[in-house]
Parts: sequence; C-alpha cells; structure tokens
Amino acid sequence: MRTYFSERHRLHFPQAELFGGQFVTPFERPSRVEYILNRLGERGFAKPVDPGPVDLAPVQRIHDAGFLAFLQSAWEEWKAAGFSGEVMPASYPARRMQARCPNHIDGKVGYYALALETAMTSGTWEAALSSCASAQAAQRAVAAGERAAFALCRPPGHHAASDMYGGYCFLNNVAIAAEMFRQNGAARVAVLDVDFHHGNGTQDIFYERGDVFFASLHGQPEDAFPYFLGYADETGAGDGEGATANYPMAPGTPYSVWCEALDDAIARIRGFGAEALVVSLGVDAFKDDPISFFKLQSDDFTDCGRRIEKLGLPTLFCMEGGYAIEAVGINTVNVLEGFLGA
Amino acid sequence: MRTYFSERHRLHFPQAELFGGQFVTPFERPSRVEYILNRLGERGFAKPVDPGPVDLAPVQRIHDAGFLAFLQSAWEEWKAAGFSGEVMPASYPARRMQARCPNHIDGKVGYYALALETAMTSGTWEAALSSCASAQAAQRAVAAGERAAFALCRPPGHHAASDMYGGYCFLNNVAIAAEMFRQNGAARVAVLDVDFHHGNGTQDIFYERGDVFFASLHGQPEDAFPYFLGYADETGAGDGEGATANYPMAPGTPYSVWCEALDDAIARIRGFGAEALVVSLGVDAFKDDPISFFKLQSDDFTDCGRRIEKLGLPTLFCMEGGYAIEAVGINTVNVLEGFLGA
Repeated sequence: MRTYFSERHRLHFPQAELFGGQFVTPFERPSRVEYILNRLGERGFAKPVDPGPVDLAPVQRIHDAGFLAFLQSAWEEWKAAGFSGEVMPASYPARRMQARCPNHIDGKVGYYALALETAMTSGTWEAALSSCASAQAAQRAVAAGERAAFALCRPPGHHAASDMYGGYCFLNNVAIAAEMFRQNGAARVAVLDVDFHHGNGTQDIFYERGDVFFASLHGQPEDAFPYFLGYADETGAGDGEGATANYPMAPGTPYSVWCEALDDAIARIRGFGAEALVVSLGVDAFKDDPISFFKLQSDDFTDCGRRIEKLGLPTLFCMEGGYAIEAVGINTVNVLEGFLGA
Repeated sequence: MRTYFSERHRLHFPQAELFGGQFVTPFERPSRVEYILNRLGERGFAKPVDPGPVDLAPVQRIHDAGFLAFLQSAWEEWKAAGFSGEVMPASYPARRMQARCPNHIDGKVGYYALALETAMTSGTWEAALSSCASAQAAQRAVAAGERAAFALCRPPGHHAASDMYGGYCFLNNVAIAAEMFRQNGAARVAVLDVDFHHGNGTQDIFYERGDVFFASLHGQPEDAFPYFLGYADETGAGDGEGATANYPMAPGTPYSVWCEALDDAIARIRGFGAEALVVSLGVDAFKDDPISFFKLQSDDFTDCGRRIEKLGLPTLFCMEGGYAIEAVGINTVNVLEGFLGA
C-alpha cells in the first residue's frame, strides 16, 4: 500500500490551542506525522510519494466559494486589521442570530468557524491544500486500480463543513475524495469514520445525498467534541434519508463494544452497495489518548483493519486524529497492516 | 438622581479576554467603575446606595432556568473537570448543528455562550447578581415615584439573552428592570440602548412582545461586535412586529448623524406610548473608545441626556459599556447631568 504525503504540512503549526481556558501547544502538531512516517519505515512500507499540486475543482464542488476565499485571505486580513495573535474568532452567529457574513475579519472568522480552539497562521491555507492534495493523489491511485492507498493528511479534515472550519480541520479531505470517486464513475461511495470524534463536517456535507453513505463511531456528543452533532437519531434527510449512521458511545467504551458498532457499520455499508470506501482514519479511540475516552489497545487497531478489508472494496485511508503521540505511528500502521493481512 | 451600586462587582475580574488571537486584560474591568464613582462625587451626586440582595423572581421571568443553573455552577463544574484556566468555551452549536445542551462542562459552556471573549471566574455569578440587584433597586425607586435613578451596573447586561452570556454580560439588567416596570403596572415600557454595541440580548428577549419597545443605536453589524444581530431590517416579530428599531451606523459616525438617529428613536418611543423608560447607558460611542468607531465628544453626551429627558418619562439609567477609562466617568455623568438640566 502506497503512502501519499506532503512535507508542506509543516506550514501549519499554530503556537496556541484554546483548551480549558488556556493557550496550550496544539494537540494536533507536526510531530504526529514523524511518528507515523517512522513506523511506516520500520514496517517496510514504501517511501511516501509527494502528491504534487492540489486539484481545485473537486475542492470547489465540496466547499463554499466564500469559505475558500476566506481561508485563503484570512491571515492577511487579520494582520491588516492590526491583530497581533494568530487567527481566532471571538464571536459567532449563535442561536436566533443572523447567519450573514460580516465584512470585518474579526466577525468573518466567527462566521466561518465551528469551533475556536483551532488557530490559523500564515501557512495554514497552503498546508490545508497540501493535505488535500495527498488525499487526491491517493484517491487517483485507487481509482486507477490499486486495492488501497494511504493519504497521510495533515491537517486533518473530517470536522470541516462546506462553509466552516474547526477541530483542527480546514478542508474536508475525505469528502473531496469521496466526491472524486463519484466523478470517476462509482455510483455509490461510503465514508467510514473511525476517529474518536464525530465526523460532523463529512456528515453535514452528505446529509441530504443518497449516493454517499456516512458512518461514524465516536464519543457521544453529550460528553465529547464536537458536542453538537453525532446523535444516533441523525440518519440523513431528503435523498439522504437512511444514508447516515451514527454510533455514539459512552466514556470508557472498550473494543468489545466498539467492534460491534464497527461490524454494524460495515454491514450497513455492504447493504448500501458502495463501490468504493473512504476511511477517516483517526486513532484517538486509543486508551491513552489525552483528549478522548475510549479504551482501544494497539492490537485492536490491527483487528479493525482486518474487518474493514473484508468489505472487499477499493479503499482509501485518510489520516485524521490521534494525539497519544508515541503510539500514533503504531496504531495507524496497525490498521493498515490489519487491512493488508497481518 | 440617586445612584445604586454594589462593591461586589469586584468579584468578577477575569485575567483574560480573547482579543485578536491573544489573551489581554479585559477592556471591561473594575477600574471603569472607580472613574464613574469619582466623577459622581466631584459633581456633587449623592453617595451611592447599596442595593441589598437581588430579587430572583424577575430574573427567572427573563432568563432560562437551565441557563441560570449553569451560571451558578459553571466555575465549580469547570474546576471539577480539571481545567486550569478561567471558564471559556472552545466550541458551540454552529450552523446546522444540534442545539442540545451537552453534559460535559466544556460543551455546556459553548451551548450557553454567544461570544467567547468573556471569561467566567469564581466570583462571576455573585457579581452578576449584585449588578442586577443595583438595576432592581434603582427600578424600585423610579416605580415608587422618583423621576430618575442611575444603576451603576457592573458587569453590564445588554448582550445577555434569555439563555446565553457573552460580550461581558451575564444577566440582562435592563430587560429584568423593564419586566419589573411591567409587573408594577406600566402597560408599555421602552428600552433605549445608546451603547456603541447592539443590545442583541435585550432585542432577542423582547423580539416577539408588543409591550416592550426596543431601540438601539450602534455600530453596524457588518463591522462591529456582536456582528450577527442589529440590522435595520430587524423590526420585531409576532406581537412584537414594529416594536424593535435598529439604527446601525458606519465607522466614523459623528454626533450630528448619531443625534438624528437618537431623535428618531425618541420619537418612536413617544409614539409607542411608553410609560417608563430604561436606558442602556454605554458611553463607548466616544471618539477615543479603544474598541469602537463612533466620534462623539464628551459634550455630546450632555446633549444626549437633555434629549432623553424631553420624553418626560420615569427613567432608569443602567450602566453598560465604555472602555476609554479616563473619560468614562465624565461621559457617563454628562448624560445624567444633561438629563438633570445641565
């Protein structure tokens, strides 16, 4: 299985994440990638391939034009307004307020943000494009006949909606890749999100579409970020009714329980008749993750990969979260090795 | 004119406000009050009266029970969750997300916040109650026959909605006082908000009521906090249709223009047939205010007070914003002296 990866992810490294009322070094940091690259090398995976430039057309099919223009100019507008820090919102369109985009960058940031822990810096836009380019290159490899490919995306993507960023995510890499599978001729595509956090952005993007199935296993929204989406009763709407499946789970959930949800999601994807699979591969369901509350062991990730393989589908893995830094390489590569028959 | 004021405002002094991607000392700080108290003394106003305890019944008529319980327990829940900083949200129910209140305090804070610059501390709830108590004591004095009274409220209140805090505000003092005038027998009450920032909370609370008229002069939402409410086309709904009047104005607006809006608002209040007037008295329309963009001079505030007096109504002034600290006393007292015939 080939890995696609861009060194340009380093352009995104905010100094600050808002956590518990303080600024901390972001949990989503460049060194996460080093651990994954090292482990891939140790286990004999081929050297990662640079994805080359992003293809903007599929990005524009998934994301709002105003949102993309905002991401591109936010840093310059922020500095031009005289602000000294990194780009962070201080207000947003709350309940019963107007969802009209303001002119001033301080308001515009709030309009386009769905969470505020995630700062933007001078290099965020370029890094987000390079991350998306890895997903696209890996998608092209699978569409061209590879059984599977791994996009080592950073920053991740599954929290990003068509018109909102947050939760460390700016462009929704898996949604863009799923859309590319559709454009390449797959009649039906599935996205399986095994990241600890609900893939709210992906769900929102496909919520009213019947051609892309979305399943997510995650910490229940009553207790886990993003808090305001991912309930079991969210099942899609309109043409997409029945094409969303959520598996919210309680603090302390072990693999025995998690795995039942995984099997159910896999059965739903099989029943849906997907012709291609995109996996939002977060490994923060791990027992030692610092901002999550499931209890998976490292070996469980291998088993997870095996089960996903049994779907028999062309499969694209896109990296999402995982913050137990010293284990993130082992856990990620375990999924891939499980898929490959380990 | 008597002033009502509680020293307990000092219990609310967060170390941090999120501004421009950095933590700064809050613009809304205890020393604002010192300048106002000093100026009142210099100009021969009577010594402020302590308001005594808050009357919770009118607070509960305006605010959501879950919100009040949250304000009361937020600090303890935050500390119990292990967070080290002051209480600040990191996510919220954004567009197309669920407005269900989470269990975890990290999510609950986002559910009940409409902006994120405002930190809560151990003393915030007590300070907010004491601020509200000043508004209530001043309201009682006016309801008992005084022509006017001044509630030196801190923290301010006009951004607080029935179920959301933010913009330095926790309990909506003017809304609670207006409701008390209604309970005391005034058939119709008007709230005039001359603070630079839109009184989004007050508007929201009374938006569908025909018995309370709300008028606000403020920086246009395209360019000024709270950004997502205060457009001219917001005129009320249902029974409240026509009982909301917004005067959004552009950066650089001088008193000559602002004053026309004030006269129009006053004429609307007269036409409405209000029997009592509550003024959201912010003085951040001042030319040197650090977070605002109008161009009023100190003398203009005197003229503003004179015009408000011409309504001939029993009048309650409640302190809101004003962050040009050395001028906040002069400008505030100028409004009161203009009202008194200076």
